[in-house]
Amino acid sequence: MTHEIAVIPGDGIGQEVTPAAVEVLEAIDSVDFEFVEADAGDAVLEATGEALPQETRSIAADADATLFGAAGETAADVILPLREVVGSFANVRPARSYPGLDAVQPDTDIVFIRENTEGVYSGIESEVTEGVTTLTRVITESASREIAEFGFDYAKQNDYDDITIAHKANVMRETDGMFLDAVSAVGDSRGADYDTALMDALAMHLVMTPEQYDVIICPNLAGDVLSDLAAGLVGGLGLLPSANVGEENALFEPVHGSAPDIAGEGIANPSAMVLSAAMLLDHLDYDEEGDRVRTAVESVLESGPKTPDLGGDAGTEAVTAAIVDEL
Amino acid sequence: MTHEIAVIPGDGIGQEVTPAAVEVLEAIDSVDFEFVEADAGDAVLEATGEALPQETRSIAADADATLFGAAGETAADVILPLREVVGSFANVRPARSYPGLDAVQPDTDIVFIRENTEGVYSGIESEVTEGVTTLTRVITESASREIAEFGFDYAKQNDYDDITIAHKANVMRETDGMFLDAVSAVGDSRGADYDTALMDALAMHLVMTPEQYDVIICPNLAGDVLSDLAAGLVGGLGLLPSANVGEENALFEPVHGSAPDIAGEGIANPSAMVLSAAMLLDHLDYDEEGDRVRTAVESVLESGPKTPDLGGDAGTEAVTAAIVDEL
Ligand SMILES: CC(C)[C@H](C(=O)O)[C@@H](O)C(=O)O
Ligand SMILES: CC(C)[C@H](C(=O)O)[C@@H](O)C(=O)O
Repeated sequence: MTHEIAVIPGDGIGQEVTPAAVEVLEAIDSVDFEFVEADAGDAVLEATGEALPQETRSIAADADATLFGAAGETAADVILPLREVVGSFANVRPARSYPGLDAVQPDTDIVFIRENTEGVYSGIESEVTEGVTTLTRVITESASREIAEFGFDYAKQNDYDDITIAHKANVMRETDGMFLDAVSAVGDSRGADYDTALMDALAMHLVMTPEQYDVIICPNLAGDVLSDLAAGLVGGLGLLPSANVGEENALFEPVHGSAPDIAGEGIANPSAMVLSAAMLLDHLDYDEEGDRVRTAVESVLESGPKTPDLGGDAGTEAVTAAIVDEL
Repeated sequence: MTHEIAVIPGDGIGQEVTPAAVEVLEAIDSVDFEFVEADAGDAVLEATGEALPQETRSIAADADATLFGAAGETAADVILPLREVVGSFANVRPARSYPGLDAVQPDTDIVFIRENTEGVYSGIESEVTEGVTTLTRVITESASREIAEFGFDYAKQNDYDDITIAHKANVMRETDGMFLDAVSAVGDSRGADYDTALMDALAMHLVMTPEQYDVIICPNLAGDVLSDLAAGLVGGLGLLPSANVGEENALFEPVHGSAPDIAGEGIANPSAMVLSAAMLLDHLDYDEEGDRVRTAVESVLESGPKTPDLGGDAGTEAVTAAIVDEL
């Protein structure tokens, strides 16, 4: 069986790390892939007037899964609609520290389960009168319940014990109140243990004692900010993969952006992108292959060549070759 | 001249740390204070049906400044209206590390200038139909400009060079777009240097390289979360004071809450509360006295008795006495 994978490198270092992920997937002999490349991002906007061409949407919609690299200025116009195109409701963001790497907190292993469709991302905004703008933050019981089911399932399947529900329901009483109630209700109905945490206090605790957290279920913006915070704990965005998961389809992308400061130099860290490809393997039920890729990345992070963001002087290609060697 | 100070200890450790601040202020011979105590919080709600009695509002409104300890479950019903009562538009939250204390990032010295009146704190929420809730996030040009004027002034007066404007205008285009434009325009009109940063990326950079930041001007919720994050960098909420500053009036409070887990044991760290009293002194133009209090707190943090949150075994009273001794 051949799996059709849409490949959207995008801008900046997306052009450099996406081929690394494809190379690693091609090195997995037990799985057959057909890669279909598609364009999106700043360069495409300039060339065609559209950051996310209809053809790219169709390719992503029809593929078995999508690999996305990075977008620059147009990131929000590319990644937010793409998350919709693949119908993803859950954004899964594992943040873990690795032996052999300098980390602010070397004992971190947390998976953020970020609601991926609503909150302040609803996009309902206007300048209601001169100098006064409003945004409508939307939280529904159904989306909250869906992310909760996903999160509690994820924790169970991956043997994670500590589940935390992040919220700011003391201030956003109706909206985060509904999120908190709906997610808690799912936990209760399963007899699951979980904690709840105000997102501000949680930011502090994550910095000081990340080892106390496993799975954090959060509204959209909280997940955005807290997962980047956790990237800081483990050594930077070059290490964090993510999966945007829908009922039928899914899109895999590093948490980092297009990094215009180093783009074109061939020194971007491919780890986050390759780890995103490992999540793609999991998603297609090639768990063993996913684990093989993760183990290879870990082993290179521990004792192989490193890119400059991790204090080394190796390039993207050398690191990718080392990962492929370890497979 | 006697300054009338409203004193609202509130709940939990608020009852323990507020007297510490009063004791320190009383030890400053060069300034005359009259303290007027008032009630607010969970216990008052239980006793009277109101978490923030009208009398307390009046006392705070009429005082030259207010000291607030902490509130528990009712925190949002107490501190949000109190910030309004004193007309505060700016929440000033310095986060710095101290020699002699364990800190995740020992080289941190950042002041968050948090917009204190709008954003998701506007309180306009409802369940529009069963299972669907909305919150209206409001950002105005006038409030954004006001916090910007305050922030750029603050940076200048305190010789801080690196000013960063936090936002998420790539997603909240109208609302944070207005915030970003208005704050930038104030900076530009003064010929000030400043950077802008997406709040998610900023969370990561604050964790990894806090030494690169001085003053961060932010919308309400961003300030709430990022300042707690910074508390984690420097050793916990027991160290962060804050000022809620209005045109005429102001309220000073530690960033921490009522800490029900240790309340009543006499071991709460009074530093954040005493440092809040130092900010009160600054506010009343007793800058030298404010500095004296800060120096005393620093010296006790460096080599005096420590409360358990900082790894010591001293109680609140012993630490307070040591601070008074150092004055
Ligand atoms: C580019 C931006 C729209 C996006 C987001 O906010 O989700 C990014 O920060 C991310 O976390 O993937
Ligand atoms: C208690 C709560 C309403 C408050 C806030 O969100 O402002 C608190 O977190 C703070 O930061 O002072």
